Amino acid sequence: MQNLNIDPDRLWDSIHETAAYGACEGGGITRLSLSDEDRLVRDWFRTQAEKLGCTVVVDQVGNMFARRPGQRPDLPPIAIGSHLDTQPTGGKFDGVLGVLSGLEILKVLEETQYATNAPLEIINWTNEEGARFAPALLASGVFSGAHSLEFARSRVDADGLTFGDELRRIGYEGDKPVGNHPLSAMFELHIEQGPILEEEGMDIGVVTGVQGVRWFDIVLDGKTGHTGATPMRRRRNALVGAAELVLAVNRLAETPGGLATVGSMVVLPNSRNVIPGEVQLSVDLRHPDDAMLRQMTDDFHTLLEAVATKHNLGHTLTPVFVADSMAFSEEAVACVEAGAAAAGLKHRKIVSGASHDAVNIARIAPTAMIFSPCLDGISHNVAEHVSKEQCARAAQTLLNAVLAFDRKLEASDA
Amino acid sequence: MQNLNIDPDRLWDSIHETAAYGACEGGGITRLSLSDEDRLVRDWFRTQAEKLGCTVVVDQVGNMFARRPGQRPDLPPIAIGSHLDTQPTGGKFDGVLGVLSGLEILKVLEETQYATNAPLEIINWTNEEGARFAPALLASGVFSGAHSLEFARSRVDADGLTFGDELRRIGYEGDKPVGNHPLSAMFELHIEQGPILEEEGMDIGVVTGVQGVRWFDIVLDGKTGHTGATPMRRRRNALVGAAELVLAVNRLAETPGGLATVGSMVVLPNSRNVIPGEVQLSVDLRHPDDAMLRQMTDDFHTLLEAVATKHNLGHTLTPVFVADSMAFSEEAVACVEAGAAAAGLKHRKIVSGASHDAVNIARIAPTAMIFSPCLDGISHNVAEHVSKEQCARAAQTLLNAVLAFDRKLEASDA
Repeated sequence: MQNLNIDPDRLWDSIHETAAYGACEGGGITRLSLSDEDRLVRDWFRTQAEKLGCTVVVDQVGNMFARRPGQRPDLPPIAIGSHLDTQPTGGKFDGVLGVLSGLEILKVLEETQYATNAPLEIINWTNEEGARFAPALLASGVFSGAHSLEFARSRVDADGLTFGDELRRIGYEGDKPVGNHPLSAMFELHIEQGPILEEEGMDIGVVTGVQGVRWFDIVLDGKTGHTGATPMRRRRNALVGAAELVLAVNRLAETPGGLATVGSMVVLPNSRNVIPGEVQLSVDLRHPDDAMLRQMTDDFHTLLEAVATKHNLGHTLTPVFVADSMAFSEEAVACVEAGAAAAGLKHRKIVSGASHDAVNIARIAPTAMIFSPCLDGISHNVAEHVSKEQCARAAQTLLNAVLAFDRKLEASDA
Repeated sequence: MQNLNIDPDRLWDSIHETAAYGACEGGGITRLSLSDEDRLVRDWFRTQAEKLGCTVVVDQVGNMFARRPGQRPDLPPIAIGSHLDTQPTGGKFDGVLGVLSGLEILKVLEETQYATNAPLEIINWTNEEGARFAPALLASGVFSGAHSLEFARSRVDADGLTFGDELRRIGYEGDKPVGNHPLSAMFELHIEQGPILEEEGMDIGVVTGVQGVRWFDIVLDGKTGHTGATPMRRRRNALVGAAELVLAVNRLAETPGGLATVGSMVVLPNSRNVIPGEVQLSVDLRHPDDAMLRQMTDDFHTLLEAVATKHNLGHTLTPVFVADSMAFSEEAVACVEAGAAAAGLKHRKIVSGASHDAVNIARIAPTAMIFSPCLDGISHNVAEHVSKEQCARAAQTLLNAVLAFDRKLEASDA
């Protein structure tokens, strides 16, 4: 086996080159999906890939496939996929690191004239963030059959513009029908967006799957009144109920491995001398084990009823998002683990807290993810940071994993 | 003593006549201080008072004094004062009932040709609500020496307009210097703005004083993070700390007679998948006994420190408003009590939870207040309601109280 090494400086430079498209104050990027900035980075990606000898195909939801041929055209490609769109005032690495590491890998393979068995495809998935067009993971969802093409086209942004019209406007509505596109595997490199790897001094997270998620919206209805003139025993204070709920939700995460958070809360009328009559809040429950997550969810319903009864509050509960946990392909995960080991990197298995395009693709092809630590767990923020060395280590692991998977194709076929 | 009786229909009609100035949807009033609507109701008040033979004088902060002569010009006037400004989408009775009951009393006295010893003055205090120009009770504050004239003039509304300019614009910057205006007494009739009288089936609240108040703004500083990727033990969740504080503040009111409320709370960044990094909240503590209120305040400081330490949160505390309790004049309170008894009304002593212009005037003259029950304790809301009979009972008590005080002047002088 040849000695194939990522060039840390070249990868770092390309990250900073693309960061100019949508650069915002503080060193971050605002590059919402299907914006002019998104078009510019897509143009750049296409040019780079074509320079490296790739054929670039775009499907009807704008997903871009940059294909480098393999020795065995009969094999479906091994994909390296992530996304080039960002959150508003997002960071330079979330998504971007995954796609640009794919290009860096192609450069290494070109330089060394390394021929894989399967073709390779670097994929830029459209609208991963969902910051402009909800939901997130939209185009990989259409690709994998979770959403229809019409559903995607009809998504509307805050200005009333549709996904379909905006995709056409920036010139990235391709001819290729979405999906029916077999993959031998997909590997996605992403920043952790959490503090675990950094805290433990790990170089790489070998992502074994994604935890299950339940999102709810809650409204608690009490009664307003003058804070100076309403006796305590007469009150139906929605905020007192909400406060008990916040603490109860926090305690739900005492289930080992569980996470539970109230992230948003709106108090009405929100005046210092008026007893809060209504509180709207969100609840986010997560667990890698679906049975445990169901238990947390059941416990949450019980808690909500108890709080509402205790404080004589009306309540409504709206499920907003449900996703069961997803275990990645053992074979693909093993390749990531072997890739990190071969690079001499400290690694640990980790379950992803956030969802990723890889979750959609895992339904139709062997899939795994690589996490790079990021500074202080910060993401979706201009302060998001990954060092040059960390970027290189993650890309090296990705390269090793892809080649390990590719070698297995040969072996299993022999 | 003559039989002097309020005319319930006439009082009720005048309330509905003035409610047209700034009438808003739902039967309420939006008549912010120094607005065009405020000018219209001021013009109406002046016309009505002059028709009843009064001299109307306006001072430099717009306070209006409608004076009916007494038999003894050497005596300072007995005042009946309240306010004609309202909250945005406020009710028809808050403040208005007090001023219009004054006019109704003048009508009864005119009809019966009743001559008081002291002159009477119906006073419309400017900017009681403070909804447009903070702080509340502004012009009675200048009158009683709590604020300077320049302080009042320089108050700015949300559009950057000053109190001084707006007062001039609506033509109510009078010539009369503010204050140096002795009063024999002031009586203020107001709606309770709480549920106690209604709940106990009382017709009248004999207000013995106003409880002490402490207002604070609190900021708790934690750390944002991804709800799916940040382990519970790593979190510095500002909302969890805030929730404990809300419950701890609520428990502070277990001190008998105490009231404690978190009325407003703002969560940042307020996103369902981001751990709250900052929470801003307000705290409102009240007690009729100043020593008990100081104890509640001390306990609150201790609780805040404990919560911040427990959750590793930064915290700032800003005192926003401090008012010690105020006991009204025993002599004036006795007149109110006698007035309610003479009218055959069910009455009880009560401490006001809200502050009123009477608190400012109590510093310079014998002062008392009369509370009318209001539907369900609702105020600062278009749903605010007081029945015709309730309005009449309160006005009758006011009339009786004023005449009782006036008779005492004669007696003490005799």
